[in-house]
Amino acid sequence: MSATAAAPSAGVADDERWARAAFTRWSESDDERVRALVRDVGWVVAAELALAGDPLVPEVVRRRADRADVERDLQLADALGARLLCPGDPQWPVLLDDLAQPPVCLWVRGPLDLAEHAGEQPRSVSVVGARASTRYGEQQASDLAAGLAERGFAVVSGAAFGIDGAAHRGALAVGGATVAVLAGGVDRPYPVAHTRLISAIAESGAVLSEVAPGSAPTRPRFLLRNRVIAALGAGTLVVEAGLRSGSLHTAGVASRLNRPVGAVPGPVTSMASAGCHEAVRKGLAQLVTDVDEVAELVGGYGADLAPVKRAPSRPEDALDLLETQILSMVPVRRPADAPSIAVAAGVPLSAVLTGLPRMELLGLVRRSAGRWRRVPPDDDGAGTGS
Amino acid sequence: MSATAAAPSAGVADDERWARAAFTRWSESDDERVRALVRDVGWVVAAELALAGDPLVPEVVRRRADRADVERDLQLADALGARLLCPGDPQWPVLLDDLAQPPVCLWVRGPLDLAEHAGEQPRSVSVVGARASTRYGEQQASDLAAGLAERGFAVVSGAAFGIDGAAHRGALAVGGATVAVLAGGVDRPYPVAHTRLISAIAESGAVLSEVAPGSAPTRPRFLLRNRVIAALGAGTLVVEAGLRSGSLHTAGVASRLNRPVGAVPGPVTSMASAGCHEAVRKGLAQLVTDVDEVAELVGGYGADLAPVKRAPSRPEDALDLLETQILSMVPVRRPADAPSIAVAAGVPLSAVLTGLPRMELLGLVRRSAGRWRRVPPDDDGAGTGS
Repeated sequence: MSATAAAPSAGVADDERWARAAFTRWSESDDERVRALVRDVGWVVAAELALAGDPLVPEVVRRRADRADVERDLQLADALGARLLCPGDPQWPVLLDDLAQPPVCLWVRGPLDLAEHAGEQPRSVSVVGARASTRYGEQQASDLAAGLAERGFAVVSGAAFGIDGAAHRGALAVGGATVAVLAGGVDRPYPVAHTRLISAIAESGAVLSEVAPGSAPTRPRFLLRNRVIAALGAGTLVVEAGLRSGSLHTAGVASRLNRPVGAVPGPVTSMASAGCHEAVRKGLAQLVTDVDEVAELVGGYGADLAPVKRAPSRPEDALDLLETQILSMVPVRRPADAPSIAVAAGVPLSAVLTGLPRMELLGLVRRSAGRWRRVPPDDDGAGTGS
Repeated sequence: MSATAAAPSAGVADDERWARAAFTRWSESDDERVRALVRDVGWVVAAELALAGDPLVPEVVRRRADRADVERDLQLADALGARLLCPGDPQWPVLLDDLAQPPVCLWVRGPLDLAEHAGEQPRSVSVVGARASTRYGEQQASDLAAGLAERGFAVVSGAAFGIDGAAHRGALAVGGATVAVLAGGVDRPYPVAHTRLISAIAESGAVLSEVAPGSAPTRPRFLLRNRVIAALGAGTLVVEAGLRSGSLHTAGVASRLNRPVGAVPGPVTSMASAGCHEAVRKGLAQLVTDVDEVAELVGGYGADLAPVKRAPSRPEDALDLLETQILSMVPVRRPADAPSIAVAAGVPLSAVLTGLPRMELLGLVRRSAGRWRRVPPDDDGAGTGS
């Protein structure tokens, strides 16, 4: 019974490490009966009871314990260069401890130190979204992930088609940190078409799972996996999501963990954005439109404030109140002389005589033959209007 | 001094009617000095003082009173078939009285009864937006306006290029009610290229202004006009707006009048949607994506509730908890027999034996040679993922 091969420098004893690893093969991480037993007797004794066929252990767990080969799982992990991370290990991402049922342990491929990004001072964003994404959504996912990675955030996602893949690729493209959380074992890249992407993530980032190597990515495991994604991010960003979607489920988990959630809007004609819009309407997510706004939402207080958005400044901004009043009375079509402008504006003639030449310099009015007319205003203000 | 030609059946005396009409020529509607004087002496005496050149009247008003020809304004209106509406008139839209400075009176072309849509039981939506709009925005403005008009809302806008025009046209296309509020006189269609559109609005709806016929659409009058648009709608809808835009100004006025404000999202890559997104982020506007949501936001309580958005239902929805558990353990690739599925799912074999044929009918699993496999799930749930 040696798990040392798969163990990093650890604060968790080898027998508990082995027991935790075993339970990732024997039971699903949301099995409340196992959790209750462990609360009573601890992981090591619970594993012994399971192997002994003790009726304290749920029947399904006993049967699996009877058939499963934990040593083989550990060898598989070892062969892959995967390590086992347990709560209490220095690299354990404590963000996961916010979950009601944190993973029993994590199987991890790749060099990324999870504690650095999802530890006490987290700097991570979970990016989730539709597999049936549009080019617009993929572009946004990729651009936002790249921008966040450049700002030092780890980009956490699920390696799925569509938004997930685009997010991972965006982070990888700028040499940033990215984490793929799989629903099956870390030796089973899913989807298969993303095998190369997942390998690339494992080279510089991390590919992890809470189920044992060899485990299949079943439907309930996708839902359980989503809670890990939600917890690993200091915040979650939804980029395109259908109305009933796993992405919104993940966002809901993040929100219940008091993590900020952002959603990227899109055309209302795109069903791929409908879930994002719904999340904003429900107050589940904050609308975000660029990487500054995501960083502000997710990042440290004060450290990542988005710059205030400004439209380009206009020459009119240089005018004082009196001059604005004068300008408003300079006709656009038929030029007027200064005295009639003064009457119309209700200001002293002297103010008009000094003001107009100044406005001429700003390109706001034009003089011809002693009369003045307004240079047609730009697109601002004359409609209801932008 | 006869204003009866331009007066509808009225509750306001002819001399006050004349005086109000005169002040729409002599002063701007936000001139606080005139308002203060009128609070003291009333419109009729204030007009007499202005004509007499009394120093109680602001100098600019006195000068204009000396030069302006109110009779000619009234004749102009008469020739156009325009009428003068004063506060207290049966058709007066009382929504305007929410303004700190309601229009002194309105010059109105067209048959629409404003009190019907902007009266005690308002049913009107102001649609505002960029002149530099995109096809996406114009399509939205037109579709939403048409849908709102079909639901009995009057569509109020400013007849400008872009969103305004699209909104008016959308309402006209379904034979709905629409109101154009002009910054200049009702005899001066602006923009000139919208002369035909404005005429069409005047035929079935209303074209109105708070300034006298013949008045030029100056820049400050556009801002004053925007407050009239904001007040005439029971709510305001922003469809595309730049970051610094008249539309957001109008939305801000509507919000301060406690009117609900909606904003249509769009691609974050479109600067024409940036103001909408900003309004949602600031909490100024509620994100809306279709006519149901706008109607719910603006319409009568309970009368216009948007239907809950639903994704299409899935066959899995027909399963109970036990069956869901069984289904989750049916392999996608290598078929399994019922007993091993029972072990994996931790449920009685009998439940598996009755459950699987039912799932087969639902198209969820497939049997071959006594073994079962899962029909690959649709796009839901297996990503992070929609």
